Amino acid sequence: MSRILLLGAGRSASSLIQYLLRHAPAEGWFLTVADVQPAHLAPVLAAHSDYARAVPFDVHDEARLEELVAQADVVVSMLPALFHATVARACVRHGRHLATASYVSEEIRTLDAEAQAAGVTLLMESGLDPGLDHMSAMRVIADIRRRGGRVTSFKSYCGGLLAPDSEQDNPWRYKFTWNPRNVVLAGQGTAKFLENGCLRFIPYQQLFARTETLVVPGFGEFEGYANRDSLSYRAPYGLEEIPTILRGTLRRPGYCAGWHALVRLGLTDDAVQLNNPIGLPWAELVEAYLPQPTTPGQPLARRVAEHLHLAPDSPEMQRLSWLGLFGETPVGLANATPAQLLERRLTEKWVLQPHDHDMIVMQHQFEYELAGQPHAATSSLVVLGDDAVHTAMAKTVGLPLGISVRRLLRGELTRRGVVIPTLPEVYEPVLDELAADYGIAFVEEDAPVVAG
Amino acid sequence: MSRILLLGAGRSASSLIQYLLRHAPAEGWFLTVADVQPAHLAPVLAAHSDYARAVPFDVHDEARLEELVAQADVVVSMLPALFHATVARACVRHGRHLATASYVSEEIRTLDAEAQAAGVTLLMESGLDPGLDHMSAMRVIADIRRRGGRVTSFKSYCGGLLAPDSEQDNPWRYKFTWNPRNVVLAGQGTAKFLENGCLRFIPYQQLFARTETLVVPGFGEFEGYANRDSLSYRAPYGLEEIPTILRGTLRRPGYCAGWHALVRLGLTDDAVQLNNPIGLPWAELVEAYLPQPTTPGQPLARRVAEHLHLAPDSPEMQRLSWLGLFGETPVGLANATPAQLLERRLTEKWVLQPHDHDMIVMQHQFEYELAGQPHAATSSLVVLGDDAVHTAMAKTVGLPLGISVRRLLRGELTRRGVVIPTLPEVYEPVLDELAADYGIAFVEEDAPVVAG
Repeated sequence: MSRILLLGAGRSASSLIQYLLRHAPAEGWFLTVADVQPAHLAPVLAAHSDYARAVPFDVHDEARLEELVAQADVVVSMLPALFHATVARACVRHGRHLATASYVSEEIRTLDAEAQAAGVTLLMESGLDPGLDHMSAMRVIADIRRRGGRVTSFKSYCGGLLAPDSEQDNPWRYKFTWNPRNVVLAGQGTAKFLENGCLRFIPYQQLFARTETLVVPGFGEFEGYANRDSLSYRAPYGLEEIPTILRGTLRRPGYCAGWHALVRLGLTDDAVQLNNPIGLPWAELVEAYLPQPTTPGQPLARRVAEHLHLAPDSPEMQRLSWLGLFGETPVGLANATPAQLLERRLTEKWVLQPHDHDMIVMQHQFEYELAGQPHAATSSLVVLGDDAVHTAMAKTVGLPLGISVRRLLRGELTRRGVVIPTLPEVYEPVLDELAADYGIAFVEEDAPVVAG
Repeated sequence: MSRILLLGAGRSASSLIQYLLRHAPAEGWFLTVADVQPAHLAPVLAAHSDYARAVPFDVHDEARLEELVAQADVVVSMLPALFHATVARACVRHGRHLATASYVSEEIRTLDAEAQAAGVTLLMESGLDPGLDHMSAMRVIADIRRRGGRVTSFKSYCGGLLAPDSEQDNPWRYKFTWNPRNVVLAGQGTAKFLENGCLRFIPYQQLFARTETLVVPGFGEFEGYANRDSLSYRAPYGLEEIPTILRGTLRRPGYCAGWHALVRLGLTDDAVQLNNPIGLPWAELVEAYLPQPTTPGQPLARRVAEHLHLAPDSPEMQRLSWLGLFGETPVGLANATPAQLLERRLTEKWVLQPHDHDMIVMQHQFEYELAGQPHAATSSLVVLGDDAVHTAMAKTVGLPLGISVRRLLRGELTRRGVVIPTLPEVYEPVLDELAADYGIAFVEEDAPVVAG
């Protein structure tokens, strides 16, 4: 019998748990789910009590962590990324493999030699983003290389969005399917990428005004804004000499212009403590960000439009108005930063309804030269959520992890040390099983570029 | 004999040291100057060796600090503010008074009761800003109150600038007379103030576009941008109910529009690490902040102007060009943030020449009601530097401190605990001596407002 330890079982672990339970009887697995609130797992595990149990676990209890890791053969962690160095060290000490969907941190990187010596695989970045992005991009890049081509441009976008049937009641066409705080603070700092051999920087205050439009067949238009650091993808992908590389986040058209208005107003700032009362009406908060009125009696929305140089009936103003920023709703949080207040408002307005479906969209865009001929290729993925539990997010984060765990336990994944899924031996079986068993398949297009 | 310990003797301590040496023989003082590099003090102290000495002192050596404090009657510290809690604790332990020009930190505030019990005065915020600002504003406010008036508006501006004879060779009319890093990062965050009873917030990306113009008689126009937190001045000044309160920083007209262009370009960002080579030309750095050119061959300066919606020959573009941002000068610092690179460039361009004079400008603007009649009052100070050693900055920071030390040693300042100069018994003698002996005097204007 093989023993699997799953650390952390929040909402996004649903599809991972389902995968592990499905394969447990045939594979001879026993699954221990360690979570701070194991009670909610009872109904999920009830029918599987012969080979699964839930145990209480406080992530700060390192002795308990040690004990649980010692009792497992493979550990899979859905804990917040900051705990993964501690978990990885325990795994190396006890000779247990680890799989996570988090980025390789500096601390994890330093464990590589030790993990290799201990015969341990620390498989990182094996969820959606990071995870499926590496796997699907590297499959295309490896194929281009195999054919003797040279990649000259790589742009890659991903977004956690709403399915078309769930985005119509909301002018932003967006609701939270992931950590709201990360969405509110997205892009703070300076974005860095390469374009035709030139370094490009976009400061935060312009980020949402400098978007690119892209089309995903069957799902219409999206817009992408640049992620923080696209340059760091060159080395792991073996694209050190590439002239153009950009990673971006996808939203539906119009979202970014609306968000840009929030940035310009100052409402995404997380550094200033406003010392506000809990009952401060939104209209008063927004008023505070405007210059003193020159003509009295003008309605707030009109003054905001003027301040931002927007038409009063522009799509941006409609989005701000829909959020209730010009109304009397109290901010509902005392002594907060603007970003905290905005997050609170958005979690009220962008709440997933029980009947809503989420959607994951990923698209890679390649340009490459083959025998002197320029080519363009795209690889696109759309995954729709089944329901409020098995969301597209839960499936695309959890299934690649589950498949990787199965391969580790079967001895099919033999590389040791710190591993990310950029090697064919790591990613090919994952992509194949996702496509064959779950219909999670990238649609690839590839054609020579005909000079216009 | 009274023993004075001066901790830290950087450039801005020159006038303080001169003050202490001048009074030492008559007052029976012995001055110990403790500095990390005491050698530079030798020529200054040479003629005063009977009552002054310099000793080496490393601020991280707490045992040595303890020893020096124990040997003193009064300690005056020009160390960076972050060391003042440690110094203050040593002073309380040994029953020694302390005077500094730094803000009262939370840590210092908690020492109040202990200091009172020990009969120790921790006199803080007693330089220029904070220092002279409190003293001169409170003198006017106290006078208005004494006459039965009620202050309805208080705006207060201060700037460390160049004397009119030294600002003509530079379109910014500015050079560094104080910590360059603080100038480059000035205003990051959100400014908070009150205007006619309404809270006002200005986010960083608009701060330098929302300035006020003011006139100082005999010295022409200045512009002021809002400081981080004007609201915190209400309580110490007893202005809890005031409808308008604003603290700002002064620059010469045009500076803020030029700085706003730097902010919009992204060059004041201190959060992103650019991983740049040391030889990166400035033109290439600025190029990276622009969108890809739509028409080839356009000169960089013209594209920057277009990107910022400025005329190519606008004053803003002239200021950027004067800094050499469109030229081939290397940035001169590897792996830096944009703010670090900008600071390096500015320290090359905004360097004080030996013949330059600096200038301190402070202006308070009051509105108040007296017997139903609105009044307006201003209190303005201009101090010119004598030379490169006795700068206006050194005089206005050091002399109020020196005067306070003298009063402490004479037993004239009897308040104990944590003290800031908002009380007449603390500030009146300082303002009087500054005016009488050094010509550092505020010019006050006060008149009823005649309805237009």
